Amino acid sequence: MKRSFGARTIAYPLPVFVVGTYDSAGKPDAMVAAWGGICSSDPPSIAVSIRPSRYTYKNLMETMEFTISIPSTSYMAQADYFGIESGEKTDKFAACGLTPVRADHVNAPYVGEFPVILECRVIKTLDLGAHPQFIGQILDVKIDESALDPEGRPDLSKINPLIFDVTRSEYYTAGRVIGKAFSAGRKYKK
Amino acid sequence: MKRSFGARTIAYPLPVFVVGTYDSAGKPDAMVAAWGGICSSDPPSIAVSIRPSRYTYKNLMETMEFTISIPSTSYMAQADYFGIESGEKTDKFAACGLTPVRADHVNAPYVGEFPVILECRVIKTLDLGAHPQFIGQILDVKIDESALDPEGRPDLSKINPLIFDVTRSEYYTAGRVIGKAFSAGRKYKK
Repeated sequence: MKRSFGARTIAYPLPVFVVGTYDSAGKPDAMVAAWGGICSSDPPSIAVSIRPSRYTYKNLMETMEFTISIPSTSYMAQADYFGIESGEKTDKFAACGLTPVRADHVNAPYVGEFPVILECRVIKTLDLGAHPQFIGQILDVKIDESALDPEGRPDLSKINPLIFDVTRSEYYTAGRVIGKAFSAGRKYKK
Repeated sequence: MKRSFGARTIAYPLPVFVVGTYDSAGKPDAMVAAWGGICSSDPPSIAVSIRPSRYTYKNLMETMEFTISIPSTSYMAQADYFGIESGEKTDKFAACGLTPVRADHVNAPYVGEFPVILECRVIKTLDLGAHPQFIGQILDVKIDESALDPEGRPDLSKINPLIFDVTRSEYYTAGRVIGKAFSAGRKYKK
């Protein structure tokens, strides 16, 4: 039996994307976006939606470049802080003791301590009401050597990303591997 | 020390969204989209990107309505199957033994056995190269009573969604709660 919750923004899992930008004075800033996801394979691109009231929105409209830093669970508190403070009057990196690193391919800072970094350039924007959407072409992905498997592939269990439960406002870890994609369902193929 | 992986579609966590549509003959179909996410709070909306070669793309362009059914881990094999078979010549629901249920607000089927359902109407489309993006306004969210907490809120730990590791093609469970959002970072506020 299902219960109806009406027109709500509910989905699982939701990410914790920390969006890094510089402001016009060159101060590094970062905020959290849970509204986003990969949106095309070619060009490789990722969408993030950001309210116009956010300092990041102002920065993005000026630079049109950003990073996404994906926190491991050990940085839960700092990632959460990036989502509840405004960068307009605060240097959030300094306040929570993390390191802004200038990206290689775009004019934007990333969080040096986080294990996964995407460097992105805005190629489209879309008016979606409360949250305009920024489509960022992914120019490079950087991942900590310590989060790679023996074959050199990024390994989710070592990255240990935060997962956001929007309905109870909780952060989760990832759990365990239960199967192989593009394989587990083969038994149903004729 | 970080290693560069170049321009790749990598992010964590990625979802397993099962996109349900009817074809022109009224046959229910469903496919998996990992490229997607919530994209605005008002109107409540969610983006999914779907290759033009997919049968779902053809269906969507005709009906402009779809559902997203979010599988729990117990339906990993069926969810995976929805991603590796084409609905053009196959009734995928029948092949894997799941129940297509006609949505209440849109002309699209959802997976009756999955715990979370979003009913969506396409309000915008965006050409993003390999994967055109469909923005669906969320008209209703339905969640299994068994996945609610004692206060009636949807509870991620009971929904038990699949999490997709794109770099190793693995499915994960969610793990454990480690903190409260909009709270864990307060200690860094001045």
